[in-house]
Amino acid sequence: MATETREIGGLIGSDKVEGTNVYGTDGEKIGSIERIMIGKRDGKVSYAVLSFGGFLGFGDEHYPLPWEQLTYDTSLGGYRVNLTKDRLEGAPKYSGTDWDWEDRERARRVNDYYGVPWMGY
Amino acid sequence: MATETREIGGLIGSDKVEGTNVYGTDGEKIGSIERIMIGKRDGKVSYAVLSFGGFLGFGDEHYPLPWEQLTYDTSLGGYRVNLTKDRLEGAPKYSGTDWDWEDRERARRVNDYYGVPWMGY
Repeated sequence: MATETREIGGLIGSDKVEGTNVYGTDGEKIGSIERIMIGKRDGKVSYAVLSFGGFLGFGDEHYPLPWEQLTYDTSLGGYRVNLTKDRLEGAPKYSGTDWDWEDRERARRVNDYYGVPWMGY
Repeated sequence: MATETREIGGLIGSDKVEGTNVYGTDGEKIGSIERIMIGKRDGKVSYAVLSFGGFLGFGDEHYPLPWEQLTYDTSLGGYRVNLTKDRLEGAPKYSGTDWDWEDRERARRVNDYYGVPWMGY
């Protein structure tokens, strides 16, 4: 019970989130968190950027996931998302560094894809 | 004006915040951001942990600063805090990895020190 409280509340360091594995609904590893995107104004985490850490042929693909999508699963030691690798294939993504976060319509489409209400930033 | 809007709104990557210099009221460099602490429940950044990146004799000291204290200053290319190096001397700090974030009374004292209202986490 104490452990659960710690997981629900509490704080986590950004450097600990980065590199954490992400697992799909079926428990399969999808990738890991490369970085998180923070609202400059309100200090709120909006997205976690998922990548494959150089996995063959997928090394340069980055998928922003709405932060609300991620649930930490202590038994997996990583985040669980309501997603499969197949579903990820059609998801908004970018290569290299070409995501323009100033394009809020594009960011909104990320939320739409995952069915997470768009709150702006 | 467009630049200013970008600075006020918009998103920033956690890996870009990490390592960014922090400057005091007098423009003197105080240190740099080691990591940010994120609320597991609400996804809000509560603290930025300031360190000296191995500066002689201070390499292992870490100072949590309430996130609200930090303002990004484009001319400095870093965060400005309402603080001086002298004032930092009496501030709550820790060595190594011994800060227990579960101790909310201790976290609250960080906010008290900087005069930032405690909102809990």
